[in-house]
Amino acid sequence: MSLRTGLAQINTTVGDFAGNTAKIKEMYRRAKEAKLDLLIFPELCICGYPPEDLLLKKHFLAENKKAIEQLAKDCPDITIMAGFAEPNDGGCFNSLAILANGKITKVYRKALLPNYGVFDEKRYFHSGTEPVVIKIKNLSVVCTICEDIWDLNWLKEFLAGVTEKNLIVNISASPFHAGKINENLDVLETCAKMFNCPLAYCNIIGGQDELVFDGRSMFIDSQGRLAACAKAFEEDLLIADIEANGQIKSDRAETKTDENEEIYKALVLGTKDYLAKNGFKKAIVGLSGGIDSSLTAAIAVDAIGKENVIGVTMPTKFNSAETISDAEKSAKNLGIEFHSIPIEPLLQGFNQELGEVSGWNEKGLAFENLQARIRGVILMSLSNQFGYIVLTTGNKSETAVGYSTLYGDTAGGFAVIKDVPKTIVYKLSEYVNKLHGREVIPQSVITRIPSAELRHNQKDSDALPEYDILDRILKAYIEEEKSLPQIIKQGFDAETVMKVIRMVDRNEYKRRLCPPGVKITPKAFGRDRRMPITNRYNQQIRQ
Amino acid sequence: MSLRTGLAQINTTVGDFAGNTAKIKEMYRRAKEAKLDLLIFPELCICGYPPEDLLLKKHFLAENKKAIEQLAKDCPDITIMAGFAEPNDGGCFNSLAILANGKITKVYRKALLPNYGVFDEKRYFHSGTEPVVIKIKNLSVVCTICEDIWDLNWLKEFLAGVTEKNLIVNISASPFHAGKINENLDVLETCAKMFNCPLAYCNIIGGQDELVFDGRSMFIDSQGRLAACAKAFEEDLLIADIEANGQIKSDRAETKTDENEEIYKALVLGTKDYLAKNGFKKAIVGLSGGIDSSLTAAIAVDAIGKENVIGVTMPTKFNSAETISDAEKSAKNLGIEFHSIPIEPLLQGFNQELGEVSGWNEKGLAFENLQARIRGVILMSLSNQFGYIVLTTGNKSETAVGYSTLYGDTAGGFAVIKDVPKTIVYKLSEYVNKLHGREVIPQSVITRIPSAELRHNQKDSDALPEYDILDRILKAYIEEEKSLPQIIKQGFDAETVMKVIRMVDRNEYKRRLCPPGVKITPKAFGRDRRMPITNRYNQQIRQ
Repeated sequence: MSLRTGLAQINTTVGDFAGNTAKIKEMYRRAKEAKLDLLIFPELCICGYPPEDLLLKKHFLAENKKAIEQLAKDCPDITIMAGFAEPNDGGCFNSLAILANGKITKVYRKALLPNYGVFDEKRYFHSGTEPVVIKIKNLSVVCTICEDIWDLNWLKEFLAGVTEKNLIVNISASPFHAGKINENLDVLETCAKMFNCPLAYCNIIGGQDELVFDGRSMFIDSQGRLAACAKAFEEDLLIADIEANGQIKSDRAETKTDENEEIYKALVLGTKDYLAKNGFKKAIVGLSGGIDSSLTAAIAVDAIGKENVIGVTMPTKFNSAETISDAEKSAKNLGIEFHSIPIEPLLQGFNQELGEVSGWNEKGLAFENLQARIRGVILMSLSNQFGYIVLTTGNKSETAVGYSTLYGDTAGGFAVIKDVPKTIVYKLSEYVNKLHGREVIPQSVITRIPSAELRHNQKDSDALPEYDILDRILKAYIEEEKSLPQIIKQGFDAETVMKVIRMVDRNEYKRRLCPPGVKITPKAFGRDRRMPITNRYNQQIRQ
Repeated sequence: MSLRTGLAQINTTVGDFAGNTAKIKEMYRRAKEAKLDLLIFPELCICGYPPEDLLLKKHFLAENKKAIEQLAKDCPDITIMAGFAEPNDGGCFNSLAILANGKITKVYRKALLPNYGVFDEKRYFHSGTEPVVIKIKNLSVVCTICEDIWDLNWLKEFLAGVTEKNLIVNISASPFHAGKINENLDVLETCAKMFNCPLAYCNIIGGQDELVFDGRSMFIDSQGRLAACAKAFEEDLLIADIEANGQIKSDRAETKTDENEEIYKALVLGTKDYLAKNGFKKAIVGLSGGIDSSLTAAIAVDAIGKENVIGVTMPTKFNSAETISDAEKSAKNLGIEFHSIPIEPLLQGFNQELGEVSGWNEKGLAFENLQARIRGVILMSLSNQFGYIVLTTGNKSETAVGYSTLYGDTAGGFAVIKDVPKTIVYKLSEYVNKLHGREVIPQSVITRIPSAELRHNQKDSDALPEYDILDRILKAYIEEEKSLPQIIKQGFDAETVMKVIRMVDRNEYKRRLCPPGVKITPKAFGRDRRMPITNRYNQQIRQ
C-alpha cells in the first residue's frame, strides 16, 4: 500500500486570500485528476509569506481563518495539508491545517520559530509544543513546519514519543540565496536518515519584496537520498508514491542548476513578481553604457518582456562616445524602446543657479553628484507621467561602500541587482549572453574599465580597490562578521581593509534610502543586516 | 541606616565604548563627592542602546566586556550597577554588572526580552533565569532590567524565592513617546506597592536614530509614591537616601511637563543627537513659507543654534507673494542664514527636455512633482558642497497618505517631524512662539490654509480630508490597528475612511525611502510598524 502524495509549490501573494485560495483549488483539481491521497501546500500559503505586521491585525487573522475553513469545504475529497496563521489568545500560531472530508480535522503548530537573519517570527507567533501525527491509508505521517527540522537534536527530543513514522512532512517558506539548496539538501537528508523515514518538503515560490522563494520541493527517501525535486522558481506539482518501507517512486528526474543560472532566475522572478504584485506593467532603466545598467535591463526584459522596458541614456560632456553608443547598442540588442535625453543644458542651468551661493564649486563632488541627481529627476518624472517603475542599477559592491549618489542613481522603485557583488555582475552578464545564444550585453561593455563618468577620465579604481579584492573584503566583513585584524590576516593590505570598513560603516544611512531589491546572498542589506546608522564603533578607523 | 543611592542617566552613543565609559567615570567622580553607597547606570550603557546587529560581532562583544572590566578597576570605591552585553556561548545576555572593589562581583541577566514594537531583543539575547539579590549596607537590593518589571504577575513568580527586599533596582532603555511617562509611572507604582518595596528606576537619555530616550529616572517609595524624578531629556544624577523602612529622602522636587513641551523637547534632542553623533554641524532646510518647514527650522535652531541653520526658499510662479515673504520672515524671526533660489528657469528647462518624449504633460502630477524634485536636487547639492545635512519637513499625516514627492520634498538626511501629525504641528507651532515669548513662527503661517503650491490655487483639502478628521482616522488605523468597519463605526464617512486606508497602504514603498526621524507616537512608521510593500490585503478597497 502506497501513499500518492503531491507537493504543490504555488506563488502566493501576501494578503491575497482570494488569489491564494484560487491557486490552491486549481492544484486540488489537478490532484484529483492524478488520484492523490495527500496534497501538501507550503507554510502560510493562505496569507502569503511573510505577512509581517499584517499579523497584528485581528481582522486579518480572522479572514485568513475563514479562508482556510472555506477551503476545507471546497476541497473535501483529498487529505490536504496547508499553512495558515491560527488566531489564538490575541496572537497566533504559525500552523499547518489538515483538511479532510470538508473540515479542518487537526492542526499542527510550529514549535521552532526563527528570529534571526530576515526572520522575525517571535514577534508574531506563539510556539507550539505538541507533535502531530496523522494516519492516512494506515501510514503514520508526522507534521513539521520549516525551522522545526533545522535543529535535528531538538527535533529528536520533540518527536521522542512518536513511535511510528512512515513520512515526515515539512511545509516551508525558505528564502533563496545562492547555494542554499545544498544547505537544504544536507538538512533534509540528515533528517531522513536520522529517523529512517522518508521526507516530503514543500517550499513556496515567488518574490515578496526583498525575498525570493525558489520552490524546489523535494521527496527524500528513508535512506536520505533525493528521490524527486520540483522545478526551481516556477509553480509546480510534484507527485510521488510513498511506500510503507520508506521507498519513494516518482517519474521526475532531478534537474541541476549552476550557480549563475539560479542567481539569474532569482533576479528575474524577484523583479517580475515585485512589479506584477505591485501593479506595474512597464519599467524604465537609465542606460549608461556600463555593465550594471545593461544587466539590469536584460533582467527586466526577461522578467516582463522587451515591449515593457524603456531605456534612457542621459549623457553629459563627460560621457565618452563609446559608452553612449554602447547604451544604444544594449537597447538595440534587447529590442527595447530607447530615448536619449542629453542633460548638459540642465547641468549648466543648475550650475548657474547654485553658483549664486558663494562657495559653490563646479569641479567638486557635489557637481559630480548633481549629474546623477538630474538623471534621477528625469527618470522619476517619466515614471510619474507614464506609470513606469524606475529600476535602479547599483550593485552590492557599490551599495556597500556608498559609491553612488543618494537621490541620484539610487532613486527609483526597485533595485534589481543591489545584492549582486560586482564580480558576479560580470559572471551574470556572460551568462545572459550564453543563455540567449547571442551578444545581448555588448562585449565592449563587459571589457571596458568601470567608470561613473562624472568627470573626465574618472575610473572606479580611483576611489575603490579592484573589485575582486573589494568583494572578498566585503564578504569577510558583511557576511562573515570578521573583525579588522581577522580580515587583514586573510592577506589584504591593512590600509585598504580599513578604508573599505570605514566606507561601509559610513554609508549605512545611504543604504536605508535605497529601494528594495532581490536578496541573493546569505546576508543582504536590509532586514537581514540591521545596523544602526548612528554608530561610533570602529571610530578609530573612521578618522 | 540608609543607602545613599544615585541614578546616573547619561547620554550614551552606540558603539562608543571610550566615550560612554568616560561619562560613567565622570558620574563616579561626582558620586564620590556626594558620598554615595550605590551608583546606578542605565541598561546597556557601556555599548549604547540599541546596538542592533553590532551584537552579532564577537569582537564587539569582547570589547564591550573589556570596557566594563576596566571600569570596575577604575571605579573601586562605590558599588556600581551598569548594563552591558555579556558574551555567552556564541551569543550574549542583556546583563547588569555589579562592580565593587575593582571587580565585577556579580551579574544579573535580563529574563524578559521584549520582541514587539521597536524591540528585537530575542534576535540578540539569551534569557536569564535567575534572580539576583545583593546586600549593600545590610539592605537587600534586587536587580531587574527594563521589561522585567512590565509583567508584574510574571515578576511575582520570578521573585517568589526572594524573601528579603529593601530596594528593587530597574535599569532601563525605555524609548519615549508622548504620554509614556504615565505608563511608566503606573508600572513603577504598582510594582512598588505589590512588593511593598521602594524602587530605583534609571533610564537612559538621548537620541539614537529614530528613537529618543527621555531619562526621567525615578525613586518610588514602598507605598508606591513618586519620591523624586530626574530631568527630562537631559543628563542628570538624581540622589536619594533609601531607608530600611521603605522611606525615601530626596531634596529634588518633581517637575511636570505638558504634552507639547515634552514632544518639542523630544524633537529637539532627537535632532540634536542625530546630527552630533553623526558628525554634522550645520543643517539646511527648504523653507516654503508653510507651517511644516517653519516648525522644522525652529526645532533645528533650538537643537544646534541659529548660526548653524540655513534656510532656502525655491519659488516658482505657483508660489504666492505671501508664502515667499513668510519664508523670509520665518528665517528672519529665527535669525538664520537665508537664500532664495528661484527654480522657474530650471523647471522650464526640464519641461523642455521632457517634452521631447511624446506624452509628456506639463499640467499633470508629474509636472507638479518635478518642482519638488528640482528643490530636492538643489538642497542635496548644497548639502554635498558644504557638508550640511538636509532636514526634510514632512509631517506624519502626509507621510501616512503619501502626500509628498518621492525624491523631492522627501529627499534629505533627517525627517524631523515625520512622526508628528499635522494637528500636533499646529500645537507645537503655538508652543514654540510661547516658549520664545515672541512670534518665531509667523501667525500668518499658522493661519493660512495649507497648500503644496505645485499648481495654481492648490489646497491640501483638494486631495485630503480636513486634518482633524484625517489624523483621527490615521490614529485608528495605524496606532489602534482597527479595521475598516470599526473605523467607520466611530462615525466617519465610509468613502473617506476607504480613501485614507487605500492611500496609507499604497504608500508603504514611499515611506521606506524617507529618511529617519524622531518617534514621538506609540506607533511610528519604521521598525515600529513593519508592513510589507507587496500587500494585496485591503485590495477590495484599493480599486
